[in-house]
Amino acid sequence: MPNKVRIAIDAMGGDHGPTVLIPGAEISLVRHPDSEFILFGNEAQIAPLLAQHPRLKAVSRVVHTDVSVKMDEKPSQALRHGRWKSSMWLTLDAVKRGDADVAISAGNTGALMAMARFCIRMREGVDRPAIAALWPTMRGESVVLDVGASIGGDAEHLVNLAAMGSAMARVLFDIDQPTVGLLNIGVEEVKGLDAVREAGRILRETPLSHATYFGFVEGDDIGRGTVDVVVSEGFSGNIALKTAEGTARQLGSYLRAAMTRTWQAKLGYFLARHAFAAVREKMDPRKVNGGVFLGLNNIVIKSHGGTDAEGFAAAVDLGYDMVRYELLEKINQALSRSSGAAVAEKKVGISA
Amino acid sequence: MPNKVRIAIDAMGGDHGPTVLIPGAEISLVRHPDSEFILFGNEAQIAPLLAQHPRLKAVSRVVHTDVSVKMDEKPSQALRHGRWKSSMWLTLDAVKRGDADVAISAGNTGALMAMARFCIRMREGVDRPAIAALWPTMRGESVVLDVGASIGGDAEHLVNLAAMGSAMARVLFDIDQPTVGLLNIGVEEVKGLDAVREAGRILRETPLSHATYFGFVEGDDIGRGTVDVVVSEGFSGNIALKTAEGTARQLGSYLRAAMTRTWQAKLGYFLARHAFAAVREKMDPRKVNGGVFLGLNNIVIKSHGGTDAEGFAAAVDLGYDMVRYELLEKINQALSRSSGAAVAEKKVGISA
Repeated sequence: MPNKVRIAIDAMGGDHGPTVLIPGAEISLVRHPDSEFILFGNEAQIAPLLAQHPRLKAVSRVVHTDVSVKMDEKPSQALRHGRWKSSMWLTLDAVKRGDADVAISAGNTGALMAMARFCIRMREGVDRPAIAALWPTMRGESVVLDVGASIGGDAEHLVNLAAMGSAMARVLFDIDQPTVGLLNIGVEEVKGLDAVREAGRILRETPLSHATYFGFVEGDDIGRGTVDVVVSEGFSGNIALKTAEGTARQLGSYLRAAMTRTWQAKLGYFLARHAFAAVREKMDPRKVNGGVFLGLNNIVIKSHGGTDAEGFAAAVDLGYDMVRYELLEKINQALSRSSGAAVAEKKVGISA
Repeated sequence: MPNKVRIAIDAMGGDHGPTVLIPGAEISLVRHPDSEFILFGNEAQIAPLLAQHPRLKAVSRVVHTDVSVKMDEKPSQALRHGRWKSSMWLTLDAVKRGDADVAISAGNTGALMAMARFCIRMREGVDRPAIAALWPTMRGESVVLDVGASIGGDAEHLVNLAAMGSAMARVLFDIDQPTVGLLNIGVEEVKGLDAVREAGRILRETPLSHATYFGFVEGDDIGRGTVDVVVSEGFSGNIALKTAEGTARQLGSYLRAAMTRTWQAKLGYFLARHAFAAVREKMDPRKVNGGVFLGLNNIVIKSHGGTDAEGFAAAVDLGYDMVRYELLEKINQALSRSSGAAVAEKKVGISA
């Protein structure tokens, strides 16, 4: 563990590029003064912004590149023109080479995924990386994965996700036997996709060594905190994540509108403003910005492309925590144990 | 159109059966005194509850049956033992025979679906029915379908859903050219499932005659009201619906907790209580309970199994509206026009 947490940032990623990412990095730096940064991207754009953030500038190094990956580029295109030289690639390469401890990008998810697979080695035994999100629930937080790294997948892929997600929950939530649920459209055994049903059978018959299989969960169980780990293939997982964010925003806007409609409501709002602030904090989707790429040998954090500075700061915070608390190493240790067990047990399960 | 709206209810459906459904029907009756009911189920359970609801009793007829479909029964099992004689089947049969105008069940979705397909004829040209939900958004309401009738589906199925959903939106929202979006995990053309991409291509190249294809939408676009009609296959659609409900409940519980923590918050809550009530009304998932089965020749409404009386009343209200405003006929008319056009245009699209 280095003294400082060294953070590599793809400064050209996201819908707004450095105008949002630079202020975001500074917000996180204020919270974690023992961070330092390598910013990859167009120096002509980055330098004037850094000049406005002297605190960040003092602990940052800019590595210039002309090439950046567009938000709507196909992964294959991004690889073709952005390999070796784009800000995204260089950010990933920095963690691979050991120049940084964590790579953070708000860029195009598909391209980031493809580049991460080319640039950084995958963990042995993992077929595809996954993106795990920390989801605030009524009971605390849950790990939800995959929220969009890959579409579809068979039962084995889902069992793999269950092993990775429960390893992450063990470490982040400091619990010995996290509970794991498979996202489905009904709690009855009869419902759902074949892959989900088959994964349920495997997990039921041959449990993971460090997690308790709960069964199927539905969309409303996520916010309820029914289980510590919610497993889904990436398409439905992403739709669940975005839908929850949208609903939180929608209710926030209802509330704002209602609280300004009459003077009683305005006065009530004023008196209860601290309570509102607490709820806003809890329901702010920006606070949970940042998905962790699981299955790689380095730490890569994906921030939402459309985020603002506060949201990007949350992604940087998550990267910082992953490094400072050695979460990757701990997840990998837990994963070696449980996926080894899962594989062994799964064979028994399948032959049974 | 009969003078009264005749409502058939599967009184044994749902997690709580008649103890919730009978009071729910009475709530709806108070709002629509020109309703009358046929209640199918176990008379020994229904009669004492009806005795407590004399207003409902006065306009209801009970048809006794011993047989009911369990919530966890497989559709095939339900058909085997419940065909011809279960409360669910008899409820559907009542609309088929013309004894009632609308069938409402809070029972097992899979069984209801299977029985509806056996008992009630499907619209010509529709391969599988879909369940459409009315989703409150920041701009009003949207139609979201399919929210769980069937899992998966090819591009043609999605185009079919787009035609049915936009026909429903035309009628319910009284707009000439509703906008239609395909639920996907990225707005870029490059992302998503093959079927969704292909459906997008068809809708772009050969538009529906009475709807405007918007493009892909993501989970957070649903609550934003980006489009009037959101199209998804049933697995992701159901997960989106349940996740939104869960998030609404979660935020409601945060708010309640925050507003009772200090005396200022309590006082603020008291002053702003009408504003809170308005928001609660808007965000109450029970208010939008009730999915409409589209693709059948009769009106069938599915209520959530776990709903309470207020939620079941919302499903009955929806059924009432569908009958009173002749929505099914209007949807079918619109559908004949636009699906005819879609099929014709689709052929051009595919050959192009």
